Amino acid sequence: MPAMRAPPDDGRLALAIDLGASHLSVGLVDGAGRLHRPRVFDLPPSADPAKILSQVKAAARRLLAEQRSEASPAIGVGIGVAGLVDPRARRVLSAGNLGWTGIDVGSVLEQSLGLPVRADNDARLATLAEALYGAGRGCSSLFGVWMGTGIGGGIILGGRVIRGVSGTAGEIGHLTLVEDGPECSCGNRGCLETLAAGPAIAAAGREALARAQREGMRSALCELCGDDPAAVSCRLLATAADQGNPEACAVFARAGTHLGIALAGVVNLLNPEKIVVGGGVAGAGEHLLGPARRELARRALTAPGAAVRVVPAQFRDTGVLVGAGALVLGDY
Amino acid sequence: MPAMRAPPDDGRLALAIDLGASHLSVGLVDGAGRLHRPRVFDLPPSADPAKILSQVKAAARRLLAEQRSEASPAIGVGIGVAGLVDPRARRVLSAGNLGWTGIDVGSVLEQSLGLPVRADNDARLATLAEALYGAGRGCSSLFGVWMGTGIGGGIILGGRVIRGVSGTAGEIGHLTLVEDGPECSCGNRGCLETLAAGPAIAAAGREALARAQREGMRSALCELCGDDPAAVSCRLLATAADQGNPEACAVFARAGTHLGIALAGVVNLLNPEKIVVGGGVAGAGEHLLGPARRELARRALTAPGAAVRVVPAQFRDTGVLVGAGALVLGDY
Repeated sequence: MPAMRAPPDDGRLALAIDLGASHLSVGLVDGAGRLHRPRVFDLPPSADPAKILSQVKAAARRLLAEQRSEASPAIGVGIGVAGLVDPRARRVLSAGNLGWTGIDVGSVLEQSLGLPVRADNDARLATLAEALYGAGRGCSSLFGVWMGTGIGGGIILGGRVIRGVSGTAGEIGHLTLVEDGPECSCGNRGCLETLAAGPAIAAAGREALARAQREGMRSALCELCGDDPAAVSCRLLATAADQGNPEACAVFARAGTHLGIALAGVVNLLNPEKIVVGGGVAGAGEHLLGPARRELARRALTAPGAAVRVVPAQFRDTGVLVGAGALVLGDY
Repeated sequence: MPAMRAPPDDGRLALAIDLGASHLSVGLVDGAGRLHRPRVFDLPPSADPAKILSQVKAAARRLLAEQRSEASPAIGVGIGVAGLVDPRARRVLSAGNLGWTGIDVGSVLEQSLGLPVRADNDARLATLAEALYGAGRGCSSLFGVWMGTGIGGGIILGGRVIRGVSGTAGEIGHLTLVEDGPECSCGNRGCLETLAAGPAIAAAGREALARAQREGMRSALCELCGDDPAAVSCRLLATAADQGNPEACAVFARAGTHLGIALAGVVNLLNPEKIVVGGGVAGAGEHLLGPARRELARRALTAPGAAVRVVPAQFRDTGVLVGAGALVLGDY
């Protein structure tokens, strides 16, 4: 089976946009997956969808204007959105954190920027970036899991990006792990996202803090957050785990176990060569990945379980931009 | 995305073999998916793997001998096996019910029969048959679930059969639905197979019978099985459910709910156009499929949930043979 090939590194550039839950990034991407002139903007929480769209257009126009004087102008625009996107219709079906439903982002940006536009789901584009330039390079089949405020995924099989019939394939975050589990923003219960995304991990950390405080234990966790539950974030817990704090390690172990159950399902269903795990939560590294790998090995069928490798993503924050650029420069 | 095309109906024939958990079928298949001279043999439980292999060879040789005098001899052999098969190596990795591990079925049959051999997983071949000639005709993406003694699956995406890196893709029966659920033959716990395959349904039926007997209820279930727990099979429960017996309906509703949870996972991950459900357990029809569809609709994300249709398979017992023949006559 063929691995994926990167677009030619022939000097052409794409304008790339990453519209996340709380940030907007733009940049120019070349065929070697290099990112030029990256810019990151915070998005105010619960901003008006129209305002966000204006901000996207303004940031893109500014970058194009800066770049127009240069030798090689951008040949097109690629945008990755944190939500369900129909790539054929270039339409955002729903993006909970942005308050977007049914936004025809392709046409809107095309009119505003005067360049051809491609749109896709952000996790799928980050997976594409890993397949072309990152930890999945050389693989013909790759599954990407992206863990942050939510959990998204991307699928590459036989060297092709799998999008599904409505364009929404890859949504590992909404696999049901616990039939009557916590309510999820998607309307289901017990989704992986309710058990292992950033907010679930922070909540488990706050519970661990409260337990330690109740029991009068002077845990390192109490010190790190100054006994303030509101300061307990996924990042702070990763720091605590790095310092060997058992409460923080247990929180990541439990999230990693849930991740491992979901990945065992992916492995039994798709039998991929490699799984890359990225996103802010994956910053916890082996505290999360170790338990995930162990649970995967326990639960997956022997042959596909032995065949797969679970590795950290190579791109930290720029994978979506690089994947969005590749979508414009290549045919994926 | 392209739908799958059937092989040309040009008079060529393939010798097809279906090696199930408890039966062996052979037949000749043409490019239109028609089955000629089908034969079915029972396999004695826990027979010697070598004996089963001899039985397969003997049945295939007999059919070839009968057919040799005819106009169009078979051009090759296709075999579907109820187990993990590596189709590239034509090797059965493991087939629990047959006691097979690491059997090089391709070479063995090729030497014995003097024809090229292709081997694959039975559920995958049944799915291929549905895609080419059955309920999945015209679909570019299709998921097949086959529910009997075990639960298998097959995946077709973008008009291509998805096999995975070791050839084992599609194993929906081993998705974990309950973290600490019943032990499965695969070594995992809480697999779909432990909750919705034939043995699990029969066991739930026996429990319902015991409850009715304890409570002195003269349920139709008691009548149907003559108060004999050993007579409670999946088929008997389907008959009871057809007669409106609430205990039997509840058993299928619970199994269907578990099936629906697993299918919601498939829908969120793969966003297929259609799901076909077949195998002996699917003989319960809407008693199983109705609850499965409802649970799927509750749990899947809106867009892929609305896009998918869940339908009964068209082939009853002959799908594996037809798919095995197609594997020889076409390039899938």
